[in-house]
Amino acid sequence: MGERIYGCVEAGGTKFVCSLGNDWGLISERARIPTTTPEATLAAVRAFFAAASAAHGPIAAYGIGSFGPIDRDRGSPGWGKILQTPKPGWSGTPLVPGIVGEARVPIGFDTDVAAAAMAEAAIGGIGGVVVYVTVGTGIGGGVVVDGVPLDGERHAEMGHFRVPRHAADLGFAGRCPYHGDCLEGIASGPAIIDRWGRSLSELPEDHVGHDIIAQALAHLSVTLIATLSPRRIALGGGVLHTPGLIDRIRREARAIDNGYLLPGEAIDAVIAPSALDGDAGLLGALMLARRAAEMA
Amino acid sequence: MGERIYGCVEAGGTKFVCSLGNDWGLISERARIPTTTPEATLAAVRAFFAAASAAHGPIAAYGIGSFGPIDRDRGSPGWGKILQTPKPGWSGTPLVPGIVGEARVPIGFDTDVAAAAMAEAAIGGIGGVVVYVTVGTGIGGGVVVDGVPLDGERHAEMGHFRVPRHAADLGFAGRCPYHGDCLEGIASGPAIIDRWGRSLSELPEDHVGHDIIAQALAHLSVTLIATLSPRRIALGGGVLHTPGLIDRIRREARAIDNGYLLPGEAIDAVIAPSALDGDAGLLGALMLARRAAEMA
Repeated sequence: MGERIYGCVEAGGTKFVCSLGNDWGLISERARIPTTTPEATLAAVRAFFAAASAAHGPIAAYGIGSFGPIDRDRGSPGWGKILQTPKPGWSGTPLVPGIVGEARVPIGFDTDVAAAAMAEAAIGGIGGVVVYVTVGTGIGGGVVVDGVPLDGERHAEMGHFRVPRHAADLGFAGRCPYHGDCLEGIASGPAIIDRWGRSLSELPEDHVGHDIIAQALAHLSVTLIATLSPRRIALGGGVLHTPGLIDRIRREARAIDNGYLLPGEAIDAVIAPSALDGDAGLLGALMLARRAAEMA
Repeated sequence: MGERIYGCVEAGGTKFVCSLGNDWGLISERARIPTTTPEATLAAVRAFFAAASAAHGPIAAYGIGSFGPIDRDRGSPGWGKILQTPKPGWSGTPLVPGIVGEARVPIGFDTDVAAAAMAEAAIGGIGGVVVYVTVGTGIGGGVVVDGVPLDGERHAEMGHFRVPRHAADLGFAGRCPYHGDCLEGIASGPAIIDRWGRSLSELPEDHVGHDIIAQALAHLSVTLIATLSPRRIALGGGVLHTPGLIDRIRREARAIDNGYLLPGEAIDAVIAPSALDGDAGLLGALMLARRAAEMA
């Protein structure tokens, strides 16, 4: 019996990253397909898998980790769709059929960040609760428990609650169209550009922006520790590429918690940079596909 | 074969409530034993169960929901202990042996609020994620997923993170010895007394205190929705007995979320008063006992 081939998609707001995998990892070049209109993008995704399947063999299952909001409820008639999104043209898109076409194979479908959390838990060998948070164009997060995405009513939207504001930042109203100064409104990449005209890594090391962003993400981390007691909070996304940011977040989190929830060294161990960096989403899609195949 | 008899304990900072139960519910009078010293309180608990067992039959399993922090990790040598607590004399108390003595029966042990969340999920027939939050002398919360407590690294401590402060309340520093103005520091019963000299239900209906407390608990609720997407947030504890408070919290939560995470009517359905009120903890202890017996 041959090895199983999986179709893996990290569906992002900027690009769709596609690859084939098997039970040991990714086995093909990655295709990076720009996210334009649903018709054009999804046709290119189908074309990639048709060509890849012709070269490698039939696809046994698909795993799709998508930007949100999505309908991830298997019992819903809208399962596999993108829900109401500010991304022009994508609201209501039947994403899963648009990717798999007529294929009748098992499909794993969840948020990109839930998929990334699966990959971080697997690569770290971490049971219990693991959270993945991306801080980039937006802020989002996913939760897994013993390797499986948490089955909430919808899915987590970790950028859209509020934390206390930094005293030196009260003049900025925040850029979230729904909330103003929720986490995404103050600490996403575009919110950084709005205030200081540059990315965080382009600001001088002693610029107050570093403290403002680190404190916001530290509040996020402490809130997650208080509500979920995760074994790992893996932080990824473009903003996290800022040198020194992870240590600033840990320092602020230790100061905020003041030794109550966790000793300082435990906070340093829980809050960590994504072990898989930009690959977490695509490897998570592979895990969604494998899990779907196993459960079928 | 006779029915199974369970020993149920809600171990609180003020009193221990003990009862016997069977697979259908509680079957004995409740004993309310004041929380004084570990020696005196635990001796009275053992005496209650000795007498109750003599009257009703041998105890097949115990369920214990306790105030925290506790060591709930079955693999830890400290399992069953109270951890470092401000409650004088109780840090390090081996609570489980102190209650069950020499009995060799299955024991379910978790936080009082995790037990309460089990009971709320069961009584409501609610799968997925259910959160129970108590707002009283302190603020704490527990999470269950499909009826089973979430297996985090430790346990949730939902009172000990910070949310934005109400503009009319900035003069109050908060009373948490670790954090000052974390949720417990600003919205617990004692924090209310600190500011206004009376309980929330004793304040006039148009007193700003109602808005301040409702807004803090609404931020807590929205944060839980954003991170966990629960099907129910059951709010219990003495402060929640304030007439009208639950509707103020819902109203504030709708305003904070502004229709992003959930439509307003869905927020009203998720945020609800505890269906079991003061009984959630003891009924949860019964569920812990039944689960321990089933898993043995």
